[in-house]
Amino acid sequence: MKIISLLGSTGSIGTNTLRVTSSFPKQFRVAGLSGGKNVPLLASQIEEVRPEIASSGDASLSAELQSLLRQRGYPMTRTRFVHGVEGHIEVSCHPESSMVLSAISGAAGLLPTYRALEQGKSIALANKETLVMAGDLMMRKSREKQVEIVPVDSEHNAIHQCLRGGLGKEVRRLILTASGGPFRETPKNMLSSVTPEQALNHPTWRMGRKITIDSATLMNKGLEVIEASWLFGVAADAIDVVVHPQSVVHSMVEFIDGSVLAQLGPTDMRLAIQYALTYPERRKSSLPALDICRLPKLEFFEPDQDKFPCLHLAYRALRAGGTAPAVLNAANEVAVEAFLNNGVAFQEIAQIIGSVLDAHEPQEACDLEMVLKADAWAREEARAFSQTSAQAVSRA
Amino acid sequence: MKIISLLGSTGSIGTNTLRVTSSFPKQFRVAGLSGGKNVPLLASQIEEVRPEIASSGDASLSAELQSLLRQRGYPMTRTRFVHGVEGHIEVSCHPESSMVLSAISGAAGLLPTYRALEQGKSIALANKETLVMAGDLMMRKSREKQVEIVPVDSEHNAIHQCLRGGLGKEVRRLILTASGGPFRETPKNMLSSVTPEQALNHPTWRMGRKITIDSATLMNKGLEVIEASWLFGVAADAIDVVVHPQSVVHSMVEFIDGSVLAQLGPTDMRLAIQYALTYPERRKSSLPALDICRLPKLEFFEPDQDKFPCLHLAYRALRAGGTAPAVLNAANEVAVEAFLNNGVAFQEIAQIIGSVLDAHEPQEACDLEMVLKADAWAREEARAFSQTSAQAVSRA
Repeated sequence: MKIISLLGSTGSIGTNTLRVTSSFPKQFRVAGLSGGKNVPLLASQIEEVRPEIASSGDASLSAELQSLLRQRGYPMTRTRFVHGVEGHIEVSCHPESSMVLSAISGAAGLLPTYRALEQGKSIALANKETLVMAGDLMMRKSREKQVEIVPVDSEHNAIHQCLRGGLGKEVRRLILTASGGPFRETPKNMLSSVTPEQALNHPTWRMGRKITIDSATLMNKGLEVIEASWLFGVAADAIDVVVHPQSVVHSMVEFIDGSVLAQLGPTDMRLAIQYALTYPERRKSSLPALDICRLPKLEFFEPDQDKFPCLHLAYRALRAGGTAPAVLNAANEVAVEAFLNNGVAFQEIAQIIGSVLDAHEPQEACDLEMVLKADAWAREEARAFSQTSAQAVSRA
Repeated sequence: MKIISLLGSTGSIGTNTLRVTSSFPKQFRVAGLSGGKNVPLLASQIEEVRPEIASSGDASLSAELQSLLRQRGYPMTRTRFVHGVEGHIEVSCHPESSMVLSAISGAAGLLPTYRALEQGKSIALANKETLVMAGDLMMRKSREKQVEIVPVDSEHNAIHQCLRGGLGKEVRRLILTASGGPFRETPKNMLSSVTPEQALNHPTWRMGRKITIDSATLMNKGLEVIEASWLFGVAADAIDVVVHPQSVVHSMVEFIDGSVLAQLGPTDMRLAIQYALTYPERRKSSLPALDICRLPKLEFFEPDQDKFPCLHLAYRALRAGGTAPAVLNAANEVAVEAFLNNGVAFQEIAQIIGSVLDAHEPQEACDLEMVLKADAWAREEARAFSQTSAQAVSRA
């Protein structure tokens, strides 16, 4: 039996992870949960899995959670309640857990994931920011501890599967597929007026708000390029993005002999979650199989880098190296938040990130402290740029 | 350096194999060639690779070959000249060769391939009839000798690559793709009048005459189903065929967790040949890469079993087991030959095979002798049925 700590249990990856673990009661036990702001959902999850430890975002959310569970008659001594980053770290480092599924969105996932890696726990990684911010540190630690990081992101999960078809030195390039987002066919001059509601309407995947906006700007794909570079040890020039609106092919690997391996599947994230949890084994799934003869026609296009400059910004940060990807990521988080709050326009997301990158002098990311310092600096900068934009908007 | 015997050097697989080996002069040497009726081509190949041994179809072809080479000033003592089945066996069992690429079309490839396997030589297999006729014997011998059979057929080669993504017990089904042949969109009632010339016009692959007709009847796919069943140890019920007119996806494997791995590539058979020759390594190829963003839209359909009854006949023979697949194959070879000679109509190919199968009482294929006896019996039967059809045609 694998004992698991689940970081980010109330998000879409988290809830799907619990659906997977509950369908294999003999294979998995969840010892730790770390949830977000949805207190009723976290309470239900705790009632279901009865973890040793449960962490909430902060002290007041934890108090609310405990009060709710007490009302419902939950045996409170079963679970230890913690909160905040320290709480999440306690969950990820829980001594009983041998594996951490890391699905806290954004930079908040970095520390709990890194600490678990230091403890030699294997990582099923859904939090791409961890590798975007601190890829070098993470991968060095995983080699030192001889611990595998198995990706849960459907694209990287696909590549992980395809890479089994050859050796690392036999890889010519990785090909990440992108749905193209909701604005794939929107003319460039219409993008300035799109609303958060329109951007949140993703064509193929149901996900959280932040990642859905990242899909609309293609920054999600940019972050995935950086993640893939670290995870698979492949340089920026050997990672391509192709737009594939049907989202049937989850990604591909081209080998030096010209063979391309692709992984296809239904757009259900339980597939990748289960793969990461059971790896190196595969387990029978009861999900509906991919109905190959009922698929739409599969298409592949080059992404429009002019319309979606975030993709180029991500390549730029990856090539610059050091602290640059952490800066890219932080600036993006702030800009997306500002867009969701109607503070800046859709196309200003890329402009803000570009301005922050322009102002940044990349340094080697020697330790987590430096990464977090660059992250904090970039947030400040991005906030300043957002406010300037917002004032311009309100003046207009 | 790998030393190779090439069976069927003058066919499309054979000539492409020599293009691959000549592009890796440090990795490969060809010690034996066994060619078909094209004497001038075989002579040129001998001049190029200067093999230790060269076999022709019969004594008179061999005499013609030697006379041509002597005229051209070839150093005749460099090569020993042999002929016929015994000659082909001498080529495949040549003591210097560690690998045999078996690309003699039809049943004639069986004995030389089997004998090489008995000698513990590894096999790159393009001759599907070998496994169709004697799959059980071949696979038992390969296990006994601990020799791998790596398929050169693009579909099986694709599956061989995809299977690296999991264990045998993790496979849910194999999905063989079929171009659908030149008559995919021809109405069923028009099939009775199609000519050999129309049937030889394959939409995506350039191949020999026999296999091109097999592609038009879908018998090629049926033979591939049988081949796949033996090669990968998968039952008939777990092998599906899908029509994929673009021939970009060369085949797929679905695993028990719902993941599908697919292999894609340009329609150039050197890709699969090189994979089989260099396996388990991959080597850099100078072929143009698959241009994913310039692909036609990829489509997948169920095959029309009513219009193409040969596919069903192959499943029937596979399920019946024993000598039935050898009988299917022999009857098909005779019927296709008769069709190419305008002796029978296109749709009679399936009728002849069905009649021969109806008349056959399958027996366990205990040894090659039994297989060859069933093969000979089926040819007699098929010839009788063809003549009846031909008389009916000439009367009409």
